[in-house]
This record gives sequence, C-alpha cells and structure tokens, in this order.
Amino acid sequence: MSGVKKPTQKQLMLFSGRAFPELAGEIAELMGVEIVPTRAMNYANSEIYVRFEESVRGCDAFVIQSHAAPVNEWLMEQLIMVDALKRASAKRITVVAPFYPYARQDKKHAGREPISARLVADLYKTAGASRLMSVDLHAAQIQGFFDGPVDHLWALPVLSDYIQSKYDTSEMTVVSPDAGRVRLADMWTDKLNCSLAIIHKRRDPNIANTVAVHEVVGEVEGRVCLLVDDMIDTGGTICQAAEALMARGAKKVIAAATHPVLSGPAFDRLSASAFEEVIVTNTLPIPEERRFETLTVLSIGPLIARAINAVFEDGSVTSLFGGQS
Amino acid sequence: MSGVKKPTQKQLMLFSGRAFPELAGEIAELMGVEIVPTRAMNYANSEIYVRFEESVRGCDAFVIQSHAAPVNEWLMEQLIMVDALKRASAKRITVVAPFYPYARQDKKHAGREPISARLVADLYKTAGASRLMSVDLHAAQIQGFFDGPVDHLWALPVLSDYIQSKYDTSEMTVVSPDAGRVRLADMWTDKLNCSLAIIHKRRDPNIANTVAVHEVVGEVEGRVCLLVDDMIDTGGTICQAAEALMARGAKKVIAAATHPVLSGPAFDRLSASAFEEVIVTNTLPIPEERRFETLTVLSIGPLIARAINAVFEDGSVTSLFGGQS
Amino acid sequence: MSGVKKPTQKQLMLFSGRAFPELAGEIAELMGVEIVPTRAMNYANSEIYVRFEESVRGCDAFVIQSHAAPVNEWLMEQLIMVDALKRASAKRITVVAPFYPYARQDKKHAGREPISARLVADLYKTAGASRLMSVDLHAAQIQGFFDGPVDHLWALPVLSDYIQSKYDTSEMTVVSPDAGRVRLADMWTDKLNCSLAIIHKRRDPNIANTVAVHEVVGEVEGRVCLLVDDMIDTGGTICQAAEALMARGAKKVIAAATHPVLSGPAFDRLSASAFEEVIVTNTLPIPEERRFETLTVLSIGPLIARAINAVFEDGSVTSLFGGQS
Amino acid sequence: MSGVKKPTQKQLMLFSGRAFPELAGEIAELMGVEIVPTRAMNYANSEIYVRFEESVRGCDAFVIQSHAAPVNEWLMEQLIMVDALKRASAKRITVVAPFYPYARQDKKHAGREPISARLVADLYKTAGASRLMSVDLHAAQIQGFFDGPVDHLWALPVLSDYIQSKYDTSEMTVVSPDAGRVRLADMWTDKLNCSLAIIHKRRDPNIANTVAVHEVVGEVEGRVCLLVDDMIDTGGTICQAAEALMARGAKKVIAAATHPVLSGPAFDRLSASAFEEVIVTNTLPIPEERRFETLTVLSIGPLIARAINAVFEDGSVTSLFGGQS
Amino acid sequence: MSGVKKPTQKQLMLFSGRAFPELAGEIAELMGVEIVPTRAMNYANSEIYVRFEESVRGCDAFVIQSHAAPVNEWLMEQLIMVDALKRASAKRITVVAPFYPYARQDKKHAGREPISARLVADLYKTAGASRLMSVDLHAAQIQGFFDGPVDHLWALPVLSDYIQSKYDTSEMTVVSPDAGRVRLADMWTDKLNCSLAIIHKRRDPNIANTVAVHEVVGEVEGRVCLLVDDMIDTGGTICQAAEALMARGAKKVIAAATHPVLSGPAFDRLSASAFEEVIVTNTLPIPEERRFETLTVLSIGPLIARAINAVFEDGSVTSLFGGQS
Amino acid sequence: MSGVKKPTQKQLMLFSGRAFPELAGEIAELMGVEIVPTRAMNYANSEIYVRFEESVRGCDAFVIQSHAAPVNEWLMEQLIMVDALKRASAKRITVVAPFYPYARQDKKHAGREPISARLVADLYKTAGASRLMSVDLHAAQIQGFFDGPVDHLWALPVLSDYIQSKYDTSEMTVVSPDAGRVRLADMWTDKLNCSLAIIHKRRDPNIANTVAVHEVVGEVEGRVCLLVDDMIDTGGTICQAAEALMARGAKKVIAAATHPVLSGPAFDRLSASAFEEVIVTNTLPIPEERRFETLTVLSIGPLIARAINAVFEDGSVTSLFGGQS
Repeated sequence: MSGVKKPTQKQLMLFSGRAFPELAGEIAELMGVEIVPTRAMNYANSEIYVRFEESVRGCDAFVIQSHAAPVNEWLMEQLIMVDALKRASAKRITVVAPFYPYARQDKKHAGREPISARLVADLYKTAGASRLMSVDLHAAQIQGFFDGPVDHLWALPVLSDYIQSKYDTSEMTVVSPDAGRVRLADMWTDKLNCSLAIIHKRRDPNIANTVAVHEVVGEVEGRVCLLVDDMIDTGGTICQAAEALMARGAKKVIAAATHPVLSGPAFDRLSASAFEEVIVTNTLPIPEERRFETLTVLSIGPLIARAINAVFEDGSVTSLFGGQS
Repeated sequence: MSGVKKPTQKQLMLFSGRAFPELAGEIAELMGVEIVPTRAMNYANSEIYVRFEESVRGCDAFVIQSHAAPVNEWLMEQLIMVDALKRASAKRITVVAPFYPYARQDKKHAGREPISARLVADLYKTAGASRLMSVDLHAAQIQGFFDGPVDHLWALPVLSDYIQSKYDTSEMTVVSPDAGRVRLADMWTDKLNCSLAIIHKRRDPNIANTVAVHEVVGEVEGRVCLLVDDMIDTGGTICQAAEALMARGAKKVIAAATHPVLSGPAFDRLSASAFEEVIVTNTLPIPEERRFETLTVLSIGPLIARAINAVFEDGSVTSLFGGQS
Repeated sequence: MSGVKKPTQKQLMLFSGRAFPELAGEIAELMGVEIVPTRAMNYANSEIYVRFEESVRGCDAFVIQSHAAPVNEWLMEQLIMVDALKRASAKRITVVAPFYPYARQDKKHAGREPISARLVADLYKTAGASRLMSVDLHAAQIQGFFDGPVDHLWALPVLSDYIQSKYDTSEMTVVSPDAGRVRLADMWTDKLNCSLAIIHKRRDPNIANTVAVHEVVGEVEGRVCLLVDDMIDTGGTICQAAEALMARGAKKVIAAATHPVLSGPAFDRLSASAFEEVIVTNTLPIPEERRFETLTVLSIGPLIARAINAVFEDGSVTSLFGGQS
Repeated sequence: MSGVKKPTQKQLMLFSGRAFPELAGEIAELMGVEIVPTRAMNYANSEIYVRFEESVRGCDAFVIQSHAAPVNEWLMEQLIMVDALKRASAKRITVVAPFYPYARQDKKHAGREPISARLVADLYKTAGASRLMSVDLHAAQIQGFFDGPVDHLWALPVLSDYIQSKYDTSEMTVVSPDAGRVRLADMWTDKLNCSLAIIHKRRDPNIANTVAVHEVVGEVEGRVCLLVDDMIDTGGTICQAAEALMARGAKKVIAAATHPVLSGPAFDRLSASAFEEVIVTNTLPIPEERRFETLTVLSIGPLIARAINAVFEDGSVTSLFGGQS
Repeated sequence: MSGVKKPTQKQLMLFSGRAFPELAGEIAELMGVEIVPTRAMNYANSEIYVRFEESVRGCDAFVIQSHAAPVNEWLMEQLIMVDALKRASAKRITVVAPFYPYARQDKKHAGREPISARLVADLYKTAGASRLMSVDLHAAQIQGFFDGPVDHLWALPVLSDYIQSKYDTSEMTVVSPDAGRVRLADMWTDKLNCSLAIIHKRRDPNIANTVAVHEVVGEVEGRVCLLVDDMIDTGGTICQAAEALMARGAKKVIAAATHPVLSGPAFDRLSASAFEEVIVTNTLPIPEERRFETLTVLSIGPLIARAINAVFEDGSVTSLFGGQS
Repeated sequence: MSGVKKPTQKQLMLFSGRAFPELAGEIAELMGVEIVPTRAMNYANSEIYVRFEESVRGCDAFVIQSHAAPVNEWLMEQLIMVDALKRASAKRITVVAPFYPYARQDKKHAGREPISARLVADLYKTAGASRLMSVDLHAAQIQGFFDGPVDHLWALPVLSDYIQSKYDTSEMTVVSPDAGRVRLADMWTDKLNCSLAIIHKRRDPNIANTVAVHEVVGEVEGRVCLLVDDMIDTGGTICQAAEALMARGAKKVIAAATHPVLSGPAFDRLSASAFEEVIVTNTLPIPEERRFETLTVLSIGPLIARAINAVFEDGSVTSLFGGQS
C-alpha cells in the first residue's frame, strides 16, 4: 500500500490568558506541566496581540481564562487565542472558563434584549473551540447553548467539605437569598441534611427592580444560617438577606458561593455585614485590596486539574461528582 | 435599467399538524383565515406523508402543532411539514409549539445524558424553521437554544385573570410545589400580591428520585393555597403537595398550570385529590375521558392569535405582556 | 517543550436502540464485544429518556437502530442517543440504520411534498453523526443526502448465495415487479446469469395511483420467476405481480427482498399468495405473528459486523462487495 | 417611532453565462426583459473575470447557464457570477441550470468515487445560491442534494406534444434503452397510452462495462419504436438499441430525449443510424456542425420563461405540470 | 386561497453604540431620522447590558459603532446589539464599522498568530449581521473575510477635495511612509496627478522590528510632500517620515489619513513634528485633549449617510465612487 | 468496560491531480512514498471522473494540484478528488495548491465583482478540505479566506539562495515593477541588503487600465536591477519595467518570481526582452515550448516535501522559514 504509517501520540498543552495566570499556574503545577510560553500584549490603541512561542500543531489545547473585569477584554483575548490555535493546527481546543462570562444574561427578561450567554457560546464555537469546561454555570441550561461537549464542574463538594469540617451542621439552616436560587439551596440541604428557608422579595410592580420587603419564609430563629449562591457580585442581595435573617433571630450567618465577583460596593458592604464568614473559591482573582476580613478563599485548581486530566485521558469527568453533571 | 419591478406583498398562511386541529382551528377563526388544506397520513409502516394542497410560494408560514403523546410522532410530523414548506419556497417559517417538546430535558442532570430540548431546537432549525413561538417554556433559557428569534408567550395573565375574578386573593398563599418552581411562584406573588410558601422535598441521597419528606416552608394554616406550576404531567408532585398543605391546615387548595400533560395516573390522582379546582390552558388537547371533575380549561387560542398577528404585522409581541419576554 | 505526550488508543463501542436489540446483540457477539449498557425509557407523556451507563469519552461509537414501526419513535430515540454521545465527548459517531427511515420519500413526486429522506440525513448530521451505515438504500442517491461518509452495504450476495444453493438458476427468470426496480432486477440477472422480465403497470391517468392492468413484459412461461425488490411493505405490488406471472404460465414464483417491512395486510396477502418461498433478511424485526409459512429470514448480522470492523480498523468496506459501493 | 418606512418592491433580473446566450436571450425576450449587461472574459491564464454593469442591489436574480462542454468552465463561471451577485447584495439568487452538471455522478458506483452531483449542489449553495431550477434531472433525487427549493421542470410535455401531433401513437411502443430508464419510459407509456419494451444489456461479469448481448424484452415487431432517454451523450446506447430493435423487426425507430449532449462520436453514430427522427430540446447548445439530418430541436425557452415568472410572482410552478414535481 | 395578503413595507432604523454617539447622531440628522432609543450600560462587573426601547421587528437595521479604545469593549457591545436585534426579529442587520477593528491583524506575520480581522468578521456573522459597511479597510482583502456583502467606502475623495481646494498640487509629491502603503500613495498620485516618493526602511535583520535607516526613494527636494496613510496610530512612522523628508530638502510636509487612532505618544509626536497640517476624518472620536494644533478633522458623516441611504433604497453604493469598490 | 481498544496509527497518503504529476512525483520521491494510484479521466462531454484504487479510510491525505491553464478544469478535478476522499472516510484532507487559483481576484476592484479567491477557499472547505498549503500567496490575507489552518510557504529563500550564489549583490538594486509589489521588494532588500527602486505607472484616469508613463522612482543607473514579483503572467509589466530600467541606465536586469504562469504573449515578450536571466520555481508546469533561453527553473519540490512532512509529524512549518509565516 502507498503511504507511510506512524503510531499516533496525543499531547496535552495548557495555555493561559492574562486575567489570572496564578490559577492557570496552579493547575499546571498540579498536572506537572508548564503553561505554554505566550506573548500577549495590548497595542497602543488597545487591540490585543497574541503569539505562542512553541509549536502547537496537533496538540490537545486547554485555554484557561478567568473572566473578571474587564470581562470583554479577557473574553476577546481568549477568542483570539483560540483563533491562533485553530490556525496553528491544534487538534482539539477546550475553552476553560471557570466563571462563564455573561452567564446571567441567559434569557430575555424583557423584549429586545440579547441572550448574551448564548452569544458567548457561539463566539467560542466560531473562534474554533471544540469543547467548554466551566464551574457552576449560573443556569445549568447554558450547557445546552454550546454545540458540543461541555464539562460542567461543581464547586459544591469543595465548599461543603470545608463547611462540614468547621461547622456543626445540625444547627444549620440553608437559606436561599431569593427565589432564583432555591434549587441550589435545595442541593445544599441534601448535601448537609439541613432544613431550608428562603428570602422572598416582594416587589412593587409599579416600580421596576424595587424590592419592597424581604420576607423570610421558613424557620431561622436560633439557627446558624448558611446563605448560598453561585456568585457574590456587588453583595447587595446577600447582605440584605443576612440583615433580614439576623432581624428574625438567626444565631449567626455565614455565606458560601462559588464565584467571587466582588465588584463595586461589595468590599464595603461585606466588611460592614453581619457575616461570620464568607466562603468562596478562586474561579476569579481577588485583588488584595478587595479581600475583607471574614473572607475565606478555597482553591478550585485541584478540581479543574483533575477534570482536564480526565478529558485528556478519556476518563470520566462526571465520576468526579458521583455521576452527576 | 434591465428587469421588471413589482410591489411586494406578504401573505400569512396557517398550517396545522394532526395533533390538535381544534386549537389551530380556533386560532384561524380568531384571525379570520383558513387553515391551509393539507393531506397528512401515516403509511402502513408508520412513516408520515404530508402534502399541502395550495401553493405556498413566498408565504409567511405558521406551523401549529401540539406536542401531546405520542410526542415523537407529532414532532416528526411538524419537521416534515417544515421541510415541505422550505422546499416549496415559503418565505419565512415560524414553528408554533405551544408546549415545547422535551422541554424538561433542558440540561444534563447526570453524565452521558442528552440535552434533548437543545436537540429539538436544532432539528427545527435544520428542517428550515426561521422562528419559534411557544408558551411558558419549562426554562426560559430554552429561548437561547434556538439560533433565531423566539416569541415566548406567557399564560400567566390568562390564568391569573380567571383566578382574580373568582377567588379572594387576600386569603391566598402562592405555593411552589418544589424548589424548581419558586421563581414562577414568585412571579405569581407579584401578580396577586400574596405571600409565598414552598414544598421542600428532602431526598434520600442514596436512593435516586426518592423523596423522603414533604416539608412545607412558610405559613399556610387557614390559607387558600394556590399551587402553581408550568405543567401537570402525572400529577404526582402536585397531589402530594396538596396533601402536605391540607395536613398543615390549609383552608383549601387550588392549582394553576399552563400545560395539561395529564399523562398516566394523572386522572386518577387528580380525581382523588383534595383540589377545589385545577385550572389549565389548552396548549395540549385533553381527551374527554381524561377530564376530571374539578378541571377548568381556559383557551390559549386568543393569545396565540394575537401573537401571530403581531409577528406578521411587525408589531410588538412583548407589548402583549407589558414589555416582558 | 511544554505539555505531556501519550500514545493514542481508539476504542470501539456498540450502542443499541430499543427497536431490535436482538440484531445488535448478534452483531456484538460476532465482534466479541458487549453492547454498552444503556438506560432507555419513555416517560409517561411518551418523551424518550436515554443515558449510557459507562464513560464513552473518546470512543468510536456505532449506534444501531432498526427503523420498524413506530418509525418516528425509533428515529427520535436514535437522534437522542447521538446527541447524548456528542455531548459526552464520543470521538466519532456512526449511525447504523440497516433500513434507512423514510427512504421512499427520496424526491418530490408532486409539488409541496417534503423530501423526508434528505431531512432524515440532515437530522442525523445535526444531532452529531459523523457517518452513516445502511443496507440497500431504496435509491443509491440517498448516499448523497448525507454530508459525510456513507457505508452502503448490499444484501444481494447474502440473498443470492442462498438462492443459488437451493434453486436451479438455469430455469430462472428475474422479474422486476414494476418499472422502478428494473435496475435492481438487472443486477440480479448479472449475478445469476438469467433472463429478465418486468411487470408493467398501466395507470389510469385520471385516477391517481390506480393501476389498470399488470402487463408482463418478457418471457415467463414455464420459468421459475424470481421477483426481486428492496423491500416488501404491504405486499400488494409483489402479490399482484405473482398473480400476473402465474396467469402468464410461470412454473413457480419466489421472491427475494432485503427489507421485511411486512406492514398492514402483508401477512394475509403473502399467506394467500402463490409464492413458493419469500426470502428476506433481518434488517427489521419480524414479530412471530407476522411470520407466514413460506418466509425465510437470512441474517444480515455477519455483514454488518464485518463492515463495522472494517470501519473501525480503517480497512476497506467496498472490498466486502468486490469494490462496488 | 424612529426610522423611515417605504413600500417594498421586488425586481426580477436575468443574467446569462457565456455558454449559450441564445437560450437566455430567448427567455428574456419571452418575459419582456433584458439580460443584465455583463462583462465576462477569461484572462490569459484562463481564469474567469465577471462584472455586472448595472446595480443589482436587492434584485431577484436568475442566473442562466447551459452546462455544455467545457462543463467545468461554465460551472465555475456560474459560481463566480453567483458570488458576485451575493457580494453585490442581490436579495435572492436562483441558479438556472437546464442541464444539471455532473448529474450522472449521483451516487457511488464503486468505492472511493465522488458524488459529484451532490458536490455541485453544495458548490452552488456555498457560492450563494438560494434556489435551483433545472430540467429533467438524471435522477429526481438530485432535488434532495440541494439544501433549499428546487424547481424541477419536465420537458416531457414539450416532447410528447410534438410526437402526438406528428405520429400515430396507436402503433407506437415506448422503449427504454436500458434498465435505468424504465421509469421514464413508464411515464411515457402513461402519457401516450402505449405498450412498453426494454433493452436488456447482459453484461459479462468478468469484464467491467462490457455488454455481451442486447436483449429486447417485450414486443416490438411491426411497431413504431420510440426510444426515450433523458439525454443523448455519445449516442452509443441509443444507436445500439435502435439496431437491436430493427433487428427484431421494428417498423421504424424514433428517439426523444431532453438533453442533447451529443459529444464525441455522437454525430457520426446518429448520422449512420436507423433513426427516422431524433427529437431533443435546446437545454444545451448544438453547434451547427453537430446537427445531423434527422435531428429536431424543440425550444425549452417558453417552459423556463413561464417557470421563472411563476417563481418571481409567487405562483405555482408545479401547476405547469398538473401538480407533479 | 387561504391566508391574508398585505403590501410589504421596509423600515430603516439606525442604532448607535456608546463609543461615538456624535457621529451616529450626525448621520441620523443628515438622513432625517432618529437614533433608536437604547438602554446600554455596564454592570458593576463590567458586563454590558443593552435593550432597545422600541419594537424593531422587521426593520432594516444599521448598527453604528466606532472602534476607538477600548476596542474590545465597543466590539462586544456591537455584537451584543446585533444579537439583540436578531432575537427581536430585525429583518436585516448591517454592521457599520467606520474603522474596522483589528484590521491590521489581517494575516499571519509569524507562525502561531491569529488572523484577528477574519475572526472579527466571523464574530459579526455569528452574532447575526447580514452585511458590513466600513471605510478604508487597512487591506481591501478584508472584504473577503466576511461571508456576505461588504460596502467598502473610500474617504479619499473627502480628503483630496479638501487638499485640492487648499494646496497647489503642481508642486506636490505624494509620499508613502513605508513599503506597505505604496498602493494607496499610487491612488493619490492618480487623483492629484502628482509624482511619487516612498520612504524605505532598511531593517537590521538580526534585530526584529528595528529600523536602521529611513531612505527616501524618489525626488522630494523643494517639493510639498503629502504623506498619505490609512491611519495614524502612535504617529511614529509618519513623524519619522516627515523628518526624513525635511532632511532631504522638502519644502513642507503635510499628512492625510482616514482614521485618527492617535493613541499613546501620538499627541506629543505630532505636536512636535514638522507637519504644516495633518488632515483626518472622524471615523473615530478624537477627545479634545488629543487635538494638536495642526490637526484638521473632516466629517465622514455625509458619506456614510449617503451609503446607508443607497443600501436601504437598493441604489448603487459604488456609484458614489465612480464605480470603484 | 464494553468495547475493544486498539492503538491508533496515522497514515500519510499523497494524491496528485493531472495538471502536473511530475511535481507530485518529485515530492513523493523526496518523501519516500508513492502517489496513490488514481483513475482520472474526462468523459466525452468533458465531465471529470476520479477514483482512487486503494483504500484511503482513515488516512492523512495531501492532494497536490498545480493550477495552470485550464485553471477551472484543474480546480474542479481537485474539488472532486477531495469529495471522493471525504466520502471514502479520509481522516484529514490537506489541499496542496502551490499556485493558489484566482489569487489575484482577492478583493473587489470595482462594484459587482466577485472575490473569487474567497470563493475558491469556500469551495475547498465545502468539498471537504480540512487544511490548505500554498506557496507565496498573491496577498498574504488569502490565508484568512480559509476557515482552517493554512500553511503558507515562501519561495524567497529558494530564489535568493540561488541569486546570492551567482550574483554580486553589492551592485544590485531590488526593483518593484509596480506599486503593488513594493512590500515584496522590501523583503528582498532585507534579505540581500540592497537598495530599492520602484516603477511607478502613471495612469490616465479617463482610460481604464491604460498606463501613460513608467517612471522609475529611485537610483538605478549602473546598477544590476533585480525585478521581483510573485508571478510572471503575460510578462507585460515586467518587460516594460526592464525596458524602463535599461533606458534609465541600468547595467543589467534580471528577474525573480515564484510562479511561472507565462501565459499568452509571455514567451515572445520575454524572449525579446533585455533580461539577463529570469528565475522562477516550478509551482506550475512549463511546457518545453514555453521555455525561453534566459529562463532558470528552481524546484519547489523539496520545500513542499519538508512542509508536508512537518504537517504529518506535527512539527513546525514556520520553523522552515525562521518563524515567519
């Protein structure tokens, strides 16, 4: 027969955007590899330039970026990296976005709005991504926005292991800070075997986005209240919830959330809040000046490292979570 | 200049699958048009044949199908209708699926599951659909599954107008039958200005899908409890919720849901239940023998007719709902 | 260089829909593998749920389904299986459809008809299929409907080997039951070195689908007539052909066809017919109660097993048929 | 409301490739329009250059090309014209290819062959074609190769009207020149209410493409034999068929075919043949020196003009053929 | 016939991003329309939110954005606007990007670089853009990056009219500041009927991007030198060119460029340069503090307004430039 | 676990079109493989037929074609070969087009022109090409026309090595024959460390394509002038340039160009020209009768062979050029 035959090899390569190189570095170290040396910069007019300083032909590429502010900057950087990998003949490109950008714009709340979370999935696909990996998507349906495999990792075990090791869960009540997070709170009650309460915001229908009252639905008096959410952004919702819980006689309040967005007034609000402890992971970088006293940061690096390894080795990612996805 | 010029006309045409011609007929009548005569049949080996008996070239087609059981049958019929319209040069094809098929498989609950709701969106697109119209998607994120415009209609005004006209809402508490429907219940409390309660199912984590206890979170004693959901399928969840509410001293329980799936044991369960009234719309056909005594069916036809008209006339659909989508 | 290298492995995995697990089982046994354990069921409202119970990441998947009635059910099940495989990171997905669904709607016979056979190819592609494998497509052009490789297997050697071993072909005439199958009959005459005849249906042009006369074109008197077709559906055409041949003095009539659709009145017609023997393969399941006395069923399993093996091993499929495709 | 409103107009524009401008000119004249002035040429190195000399923005473009030899030249010219129209903002582009290029490579006859007829459909789509129009596709399944509407015109009425006006069909037998054209012959027998015969080529299975004997299946003695085919290429098949028919006692033989490919030895063969008359249409140009004495050419122009008009006016094309497609 | 017919209207609507609303406003005023009221903001974490405050269903949308720094911000905003328009059923969406973002990354200068200008074209397409409009693309080939119509406008007439009205072109020499802009300089010499010179940068091949000498090729002594470029970014190239020309005895130097990027050290360099006048257009906003003394800004608004009008009215855009594109 | 595992092998296979089998043969020989035996022919009506005579399943295919006249013929042949490979399950298909067809139509020079170079990229993609390899694209931006990896090879080292070994570059001036090739000339001056001159064609703006004067910009008197271009087509530009240089006192003129198109009057012009030597590569075949006396042909084969090897082995192609692409 004509032609030449060779055994095939696959090669894992890790790439990191400039948003949070420390997390990528931690993942690489855990996996025993180096981040591929990359030249990345902004030109004077703010356009981004990227070039990889090693051949990437045929590699199994994982492109890690954390979508902290400025989100659009880091998203475009990641798209440009993917484009460069595609054109340089990478064999498979997995976008690793621990905090999925624009996850909250996952549906139209009103007419003539975008669905930016779907747009982001399409942009990744268009640039050349074959697969996505992310942690605690704001809505699990976002998996369905991408036309390809999505590895959806859960930080809940990371967070709950810590809480179970430090707190007595028998006096704990899991609290959802609003109606949209009750399903998440529900999973926590399963995990910790706790009771559930929710904060119900009564809205004034005539004034958009104005919450009239924060009702507490469920028993919280004398309980250690664990407020859970997928992210803490400006901290408004969770701090008001904490106040409402203390006013209703909670013994103490703690909070657990995967994504530390911590933007705008978050530092001031959380510093001034009643929280005993606020536990997050490092899916996003937290600059020193935004780290308030009660903040505990757990690393998501080991989980992502295990997941990347499973993807590369054709192992099972869902087995990392007992079969759930 | 070479060529011939003509003023352009647009032509609305309505098409109906065989699942629920009565609803399509009602919509057509409200709009003052006829359903396009269509030959549709199953061959002996169960394959479907469809042919339109009028020219459809250049038309603005709306293809109405209700996805009752057998769902796969009616879905394939609609896909085949869309294919026939595409090949017959229809200008624009809007799929009207009042009850979106496979809406509940909108994410992976476990590894190696499909996301059938996204698959369905892609099948519609592939067959040739330009747009979708649906009522009360199980998750609003399904809008983002389709690569094109989606008109997402809300039955809430239809249901709540009826309830407000018949019940005293001051003694009413809106109850979510589980953690996944609290956001919907929350919208009802805004609409009716009521208090909120939820049923919290404690699961046994070792036995999949087994609910250990139905806790009621919130105050329900002496209240008229309105259980709300997007659909009633086998009736299990909602009937257990009703029992739990009665056991906790509720004055009476009623239920409101958009989609009357009413499959399997639904008739027996609901006939035997404590419900004063169960209010649904006709997004799905309800055969006579499945209509239990306390069932009230409101027509969704006028809403769909107004929405189709707005789409055809380039008017605003969201204005039918005060700007929300 | 950064990164980790590993030798690559490929892994064959077989999956089976619920339509005809016996055929899939036979193929698996011939290949010495197990069908991947799969949870598949219909919910109460008839929607299908599928989940694979083993990791399929990186595998070379073959998804076997037989498209017996209810065709739409089994087609949707297969699409959903493919979607689940795609999202679970299968590397390559081959749809194995021994009897291609909707193969007869391969063109528009009249205006405003669908071309459902092309639609089916597009649905497979959209769900995530990389390749198709099928047996005796109703028209070979259907290969061109799929945007990717199609392995088109021929049952003719299976059928003709049997016939040659049992009958004296020197007294045999191959007969096409209508004008549309003459090309197939022609291949049989090449194979068996026989003469040819055809049944010519004169139609009444004013009454659609009404055949006035069944003319026999060619010599059949005193001959053993072998009626050949790609499928036997309701048996109408082939039984009328048999009658016409007997009326014209045929010595005996036998029939050979790949696909035993055998729907509706087929059992009664074939039981009452003049056929000495009707030979088919098991591309479709034949329930016990539809097996008439003169029916002979040859297994297509060995052919499919060899073809799957050739695809997996990068061998030649067409060499199984002497280079033809 | 913001914005400006205007009534919409549609504008038909006809474009012609250089293969057969006379046919395009005839169509234009029948429709009362001008062919859009176009600069088309080959550079010295044989690359094609095309530019339209009028604005085509927003027009409904019909791009007429006849795919005579050199086929690849005329196909590329048409693709380049379509590309130019797309980039110049034509609103809709219909490719008019009276003789579909590569129609005979509509399936794989052997392994590792292309399916060029599907490739051509994809090339048209890629270049920017929205729709196709063609006459008597070699296989009707080619309609399904294109992902969009196909207007499939039939020359049979043009040819049969002529034959019925000139010949006595009561003494006529329609003959298929080989097994692949029996379905076409069958349609002719319906149309003319004639009997059917076929030429059956026995092949020597050991020598590819070698025909051993031309058997006549059916009665032809004393009959006027009408050989029908979709095209006459080198004339080999049809001339051998004519000989076989005369040898079997036919009274006379005539031939009717849509596409006059007439390549290579066709002129010599047909000039020397027994045909009383050979009737074709002008879907392809026939240079003067290839017109043999018994050739009759009917114009396909009026049919195409009516079809283009129906497409532009959103009328029914299939009604031109009594509903068939 | 079934269905309702209406005459069709088309509606022009203009949308503006937040980068340079003054230019959009000028265009709107020239066209006699209003910019569609739009709510656009950044959330605390920097994600963008956009909503249109009027129905846009069926409109012919033009989305104007100027890609000044921060480019990624304004690009994402425009993509999100396009997504929202697509989902709100705009009929056609034209992206107006007077300064095409990432135009200079139009090819790979080294291995493993992206081609960001193609990526941008694909992102626009993916978001839902049907067409693009831009001014003086850095390379005209960028037209070919977009899969659809591109209206490529030329600022040369705007700039040259001004120069011809103010300067004596008989003593003028057009100078290309480097080898990459000679083609542009060549077009200027045609327009002004001038002689040509170029600045040739000798590079040290051992030190990347280091220019050793600026040779002047051509006669410039005693001439009024017009340096032309498509953009002035940091001003380095053009200021060094001016120096080299003065050193070679030029009488005076002026500069003309379409796009005033003017980033980083541009203000200081140009303020300190020998230029008599630097003429640009307002394809990008120029903040007051970056406007140096010799700067002249001509408005590109009228050109864009005329082009949008031609697109909406199905007129000819190239006729605005005498047929060139 | 179910399934069978095997180590994976990759297999390089080379395919050649009929345009220039000698080049493909040279590449194959250098790589130590055989060209895959292929049956390729034109039917009597000029349609192309292709079939590979070995199994290609799973191979890494490189399809080599030289796009000499008739370009459309060889382009279609290559597309058909790619289609056949795709359908025969080749794993990856790289189109090798040393001279990219239609490279000069890389933008619209006037309204209503095609961008044929983009069209060609899309046709390759549609047929099934995964990657492209080409030499000295007329504009490097053409890399961005293809949606996938492009290996862009440079002949400059091949040509400049020869020149440096034969000529004294200290008395050499590199000359661009027109404004469009100055960037290329600039790269040559870097490589040879020479001075630069350009030929400036003054056009008469009223008469399209008519050049009034050939100005020489830069010093050429007494110099050895090296005219450089990417291709020599009819030789008009380069011969006029040579004349203008001799008229301005050049000592001698030589020319170097990658692609020897040499069409139409090229032989006569170059035979009659003042050139001492004209150096090209064999990206295109040069028939014996078109080889004029001063022509030197260097082989591009070794470069392509090394590049194909690097692609197959997942090595670096850009390292063949010191990192540039």
